[in-house]
Amino acid sequence: MDELGIGLIGTGFMGRAHALAFRSVSAVFELPVRLQLAALADADIQRAQHCAAAWGFTQAHAEWQQLIANPQVDLVAITTPNHLHFPMAMAALAAGKAVYCEKPLAVSVEQARQMHHAAQAAGVVTRVGYNYQHNPLIVLARELIGNGELGQLVSFQGEFSEDFMADPDAPWSWRCDPAHAGGALADLGSHLLAMARFLMGPVQAVCADTQTVHQQRPIHNGSPQRRGIAVDDQAHALLRFANGARGTVSSSWIKHGYKNHLSFEISGTLGTLAFDQERLNEVRLYRVGQKGFQRLLAGPELPGYAAFSPAPGHQLGYNELKTLEVQELVMALCGQGHAGTDFQEAWEVERLAAAIRLAAQEQRWVEL
Amino acid sequence: MDELGIGLIGTGFMGRAHALAFRSVSAVFELPVRLQLAALADADIQRAQHCAAAWGFTQAHAEWQQLIANPQVDLVAITTPNHLHFPMAMAALAAGKAVYCEKPLAVSVEQARQMHHAAQAAGVVTRVGYNYQHNPLIVLARELIGNGELGQLVSFQGEFSEDFMADPDAPWSWRCDPAHAGGALADLGSHLLAMARFLMGPVQAVCADTQTVHQQRPIHNGSPQRRGIAVDDQAHALLRFANGARGTVSSSWIKHGYKNHLSFEISGTLGTLAFDQERLNEVRLYRVGQKGFQRLLAGPELPGYAAFSPAPGHQLGYNELKTLEVQELVMALCGQGHAGTDFQEAWEVERLAAAIRLAAQEQRWVEL
Amino acid sequence: MDELGIGLIGTGFMGRAHALAFRSVSAVFELPVRLQLAALADADIQRAQHCAAAWGFTQAHAEWQQLIANPQVDLVAITTPNHLHFPMAMAALAAGKAVYCEKPLAVSVEQARQMHHAAQAAGVVTRVGYNYQHNPLIVLARELIGNGELGQLVSFQGEFSEDFMADPDAPWSWRCDPAHAGGALADLGSHLLAMARFLMGPVQAVCADTQTVHQQRPIHNGSPQRRGIAVDDQAHALLRFANGARGTVSSSWIKHGYKNHLSFEISGTLGTLAFDQERLNEVRLYRVGQKGFQRLLAGPELPGYAAFSPAPGHQLGYNELKTLEVQELVMALCGQGHAGTDFQEAWEVERLAAAIRLAAQEQRWVEL
Amino acid sequence: MDELGIGLIGTGFMGRAHALAFRSVSAVFELPVRLQLAALADADIQRAQHCAAAWGFTQAHAEWQQLIANPQVDLVAITTPNHLHFPMAMAALAAGKAVYCEKPLAVSVEQARQMHHAAQAAGVVTRVGYNYQHNPLIVLARELIGNGELGQLVSFQGEFSEDFMADPDAPWSWRCDPAHAGGALADLGSHLLAMARFLMGPVQAVCADTQTVHQQRPIHNGSPQRRGIAVDDQAHALLRFANGARGTVSSSWIKHGYKNHLSFEISGTLGTLAFDQERLNEVRLYRVGQKGFQRLLAGPELPGYAAFSPAPGHQLGYNELKTLEVQELVMALCGQGHAGTDFQEAWEVERLAAAIRLAAQEQRWVEL
Repeated sequence: MDELGIGLIGTGFMGRAHALAFRSVSAVFELPVRLQLAALADADIQRAQHCAAAWGFTQAHAEWQQLIANPQVDLVAITTPNHLHFPMAMAALAAGKAVYCEKPLAVSVEQARQMHHAAQAAGVVTRVGYNYQHNPLIVLARELIGNGELGQLVSFQGEFSEDFMADPDAPWSWRCDPAHAGGALADLGSHLLAMARFLMGPVQAVCADTQTVHQQRPIHNGSPQRRGIAVDDQAHALLRFANGARGTVSSSWIKHGYKNHLSFEISGTLGTLAFDQERLNEVRLYRVGQKGFQRLLAGPELPGYAAFSPAPGHQLGYNELKTLEVQELVMALCGQGHAGTDFQEAWEVERLAAAIRLAAQEQRWVEL
Repeated sequence: MDELGIGLIGTGFMGRAHALAFRSVSAVFELPVRLQLAALADADIQRAQHCAAAWGFTQAHAEWQQLIANPQVDLVAITTPNHLHFPMAMAALAAGKAVYCEKPLAVSVEQARQMHHAAQAAGVVTRVGYNYQHNPLIVLARELIGNGELGQLVSFQGEFSEDFMADPDAPWSWRCDPAHAGGALADLGSHLLAMARFLMGPVQAVCADTQTVHQQRPIHNGSPQRRGIAVDDQAHALLRFANGARGTVSSSWIKHGYKNHLSFEISGTLGTLAFDQERLNEVRLYRVGQKGFQRLLAGPELPGYAAFSPAPGHQLGYNELKTLEVQELVMALCGQGHAGTDFQEAWEVERLAAAIRLAAQEQRWVEL
Repeated sequence: MDELGIGLIGTGFMGRAHALAFRSVSAVFELPVRLQLAALADADIQRAQHCAAAWGFTQAHAEWQQLIANPQVDLVAITTPNHLHFPMAMAALAAGKAVYCEKPLAVSVEQARQMHHAAQAAGVVTRVGYNYQHNPLIVLARELIGNGELGQLVSFQGEFSEDFMADPDAPWSWRCDPAHAGGALADLGSHLLAMARFLMGPVQAVCADTQTVHQQRPIHNGSPQRRGIAVDDQAHALLRFANGARGTVSSSWIKHGYKNHLSFEISGTLGTLAFDQERLNEVRLYRVGQKGFQRLLAGPELPGYAAFSPAPGHQLGYNELKTLEVQELVMALCGQGHAGTDFQEAWEVERLAAAIRLAAQEQRWVEL
Repeated sequence: MDELGIGLIGTGFMGRAHALAFRSVSAVFELPVRLQLAALADADIQRAQHCAAAWGFTQAHAEWQQLIANPQVDLVAITTPNHLHFPMAMAALAAGKAVYCEKPLAVSVEQARQMHHAAQAAGVVTRVGYNYQHNPLIVLARELIGNGELGQLVSFQGEFSEDFMADPDAPWSWRCDPAHAGGALADLGSHLLAMARFLMGPVQAVCADTQTVHQQRPIHNGSPQRRGIAVDDQAHALLRFANGARGTVSSSWIKHGYKNHLSFEISGTLGTLAFDQERLNEVRLYRVGQKGFQRLLAGPELPGYAAFSPAPGHQLGYNELKTLEVQELVMALCGQGHAGTDFQEAWEVERLAAAIRLAAQEQRWVEL
């Protein structure tokens, strides 16, 4: 394969993040293939055309079906609202195309399962946008754990909190709709659960508690009219991992003061590692024999960092995690690299979230 | 009452901490009563005499029963190993004396219940050494919460981790004995549960998970012989508070890197407050309208701090929290002040810990 | 102007950083002009061709003179070693082209002065790569200061420390050559001085101390042969600002533990602001009436951040500061925006650094 | 010597701090001598009597001369305003008594010199209250440096900032009086200079800049009447140490947000150590080969800490540094221990501060 044709559906926050990543990746990395920004789709054809010109895509489509059918498109990137992931991905898989879908994979476990099976049947590369895992420091954490440098794993305590819904007058949005995989657990928690699995492996059993604190919200910003909310504002769970470790996860979109607080601490019999996405370029690490925690700044000894800068402490940004994600995807499409989250793994994340919801609903431990 | 006779049982870490507090308190605070360091008891009479001289106590006893019977003693302070709290406190109460007992109150809920009832019957002042609550910043936190400055409380996430048992070769000790209220939950977790109740109020239901990671330990330091361990190395729990808030608590004595990590975050509908005992002179506070968390250093605007220093940022130490605890106790004995943990409250803490153990054992939610 | 032709000289760390910025900027911002990546020059023509293909430049040149002469090139970006800035920029200015030059502007104040005058005579837009100033939080700091929110400025304490030369066996390089503007003051300090001027305005007088701690270094990595070092390993200075504020600056490339520690604290009669480039997405801010410092995370309320992400706390990286720098430059070329560092300002920075060197050499205060 | 009689002059903040330390020290440490709290002096005899009773002193005097003459008094502790240090210490020395004087030693270098010579002539133990140096972590820092663990020392960057005079309406006080050793440099800076000498050794040359930012202040709190201020609000200096290291010191009492910010960083050819008095129980340490700074919490591996607590991370407070200071003093009186600041060293600190003042006044480097 000399050339890889990229088709991108969606022009929102994530659409542009994908476009930036596809534009940057070949200047950051030596890739074994040339990327062609073949087509961009948006239901608003004028926006599609405008963004295609600004972002460097050759063609613009109003219909996403056209993009999937476009013979120049080898890889379909999906950045639309959650409920559209399923039809788009299923159509792309049916067309035999590789798929790169934003998280969460689907709005139900059943959809996710079907997508996973369709991907298996199609035999194509799939990836889901759990970009936080591509942080070079997270890759390092996985290596440290894999090499046994933390010893036998003992605990995982994780939290993903933000405060964008902390105001009781923050209005209803599709994120509040259970049919769109709404709620703090789905929206934020899924990132944390994916991270937990990435670093700790499978979860065997969960017990959980979820709560809707603000039970009504304005139908739109400033409206006096309110509608009921059926999704969780916060979720807390106990986890038992297959490796024997135990732990907790919390997820909230109403915790004042936090903006992107995907944080965790992993302890093992030989050390403890702590991370907070609000300072994504550093980890705190303690290993037996140290006097106190070390603060490690990302630097060029980490391959994913070195691609961006030869100098330590210069820091990567959120969008660059997306570039790292795209690089892994491109390598996978070239038959190299296999660390990314595919549809199977994303389905496992959905299963785990569903088990947490069930445990909360039935107030009991649930085995996976 | 012009004069208050202090009788102290025990000369270990906590014995000396009490002695230091009783020596300092009248120089730090203007007290309505004069303290007399009347008697010190230790089974080793030579040690009792030596410490009595060094610490300024008038008499030394080998038998704690003598100390309780000593007519110069109005208040009996108990700092012996956990299993002795019950007989000593019961004897002191029977003698009609006020009791100041180190935590945990007892080695079983049933003991604690009897001690509470005996105290009620005796009608005397009792206190239990949950000294972390006397930190002026914790008192401030309670006031902020009480005044509604964090709004309706939403979540409590707490952790008390240390690493003094993280080494699998750390030997067995009485702390590993269930009959002495051993385990991370009892030893460390009880402080955290007391703090949760102090700030958040009663807990209604818990679900929990406990684990013994290192199932055998040397019988003593360096010994090749090992004995089985029946208490938890780590405990995790979900909590539902009576006020509607939800949360998690974790307790571990095997989490590498932590030395005194009694930490928590409380969020409400108007803000978030975070604390870590490893930096006991500061809190992080976020309130609606702020751009980010503020770091507050303790200063003389807090009465408990002003007693020690007129200058902000000069910091209190662990032992001075004990002085604050003793001051509250003396005020209570003079009929003023009522913020301390008495036997009733300490029994409630034991009940909560027992509910967590039961929930873990039976793998189900337990109502209190 | 519909289209702006970019010519880039150099393919090293900074060459690629420029290329990434030029590739990203039109997807991040709505620009009033279309950028054409017209030409890339590198003395190694094969590398020039390879990078041109990977980075999307139309033409490749071995001779930088060809690039300047190329009629498709409107803007000449210079990322070569310091001693080449002067001939390249002078040639580009002579050709009437806009120039975007990496820092430091030149290897002597005299060169910098000539470049400034040539730019004035040519009447073109010039910019110098002091990219740290384009950090949205630094822009915010300048606005806070400009609006008087810190009151009358009182002090500036700044430091730029790294440790890449801390090892006495770190070899000689062109950075150790005074003829290439070598030394910690020139290499790192110039960033700090530019920042001080950006936020505080002109400096009136300096006193300083510079030192070469490791007076010989291997001629190349691992060589037993050593050569003498004539540039400073560390520099410290006192500053008097025209606005009346006083302060200190320190610069070191041998301070262990620091990787990119461009840090400063500015205090005024109404508050204090602190920043550290090692955590470029946050500032600490204290204003009269606060209890303690607030930690502000960059978010979309800052225009330069919003261009990259609608969500707070997601963080920008070093390379994205370059994109912000390029955006300002493009706007300036379109007759909008004027916050960037032009040749005149860069010359002033060189004058300030030279005054510090003179003060250190003659051990006296030097007026500017 | 079996018994050491303590005479304390002054009952303010420092008077009580001394009293607390003298009361605690024999319970914290095993001392080779018994302390007798013999006498307390305060010009207000009622206050003297009240405090003597509360703090446990046997006698109360209205005249400090009586206290010095009191045969029960072996050691005279002086905690009065600065201008009284000279007459009191000289009288005590003339009476052949040991002296423990609060800092600064005197209100002029000449006074300090005379006090040093008088102490030498008297051949008694003297100590000055630079209590920050008795922090077990500072003792550790001195040992690390002494053992060469930071290599050859390269730089010292220190700052002591507070904000208690930041408000332009903070009234005049004796601290604003040059005749009382007023100003930020004398009041705060002297602690920093003493610390610099304690850790780095003698200073050979200084250059400096001092400034009075608020040139008039109310004569007392709330008064509309103002008087001129002749002392510095902030001071900045360059330092050259005898060991070859270079550095900066800054001192300010108008830097908003800081409460007790005595902070410094020491770098050497093998590492860097950083400390901030606002977190007095931790240091940040980087040594060659580490990935990043370690945060060390004080623990019982430090003798000065172990005396207070067998458990790490429990933290000492400001007042306990005073207890440590008193312990060293008592040991010195018993012919053991010699790490404290005596009159000679305190005179050297005054000489250094005076050199900084002279350098600022004459705007030139000053040799010591």
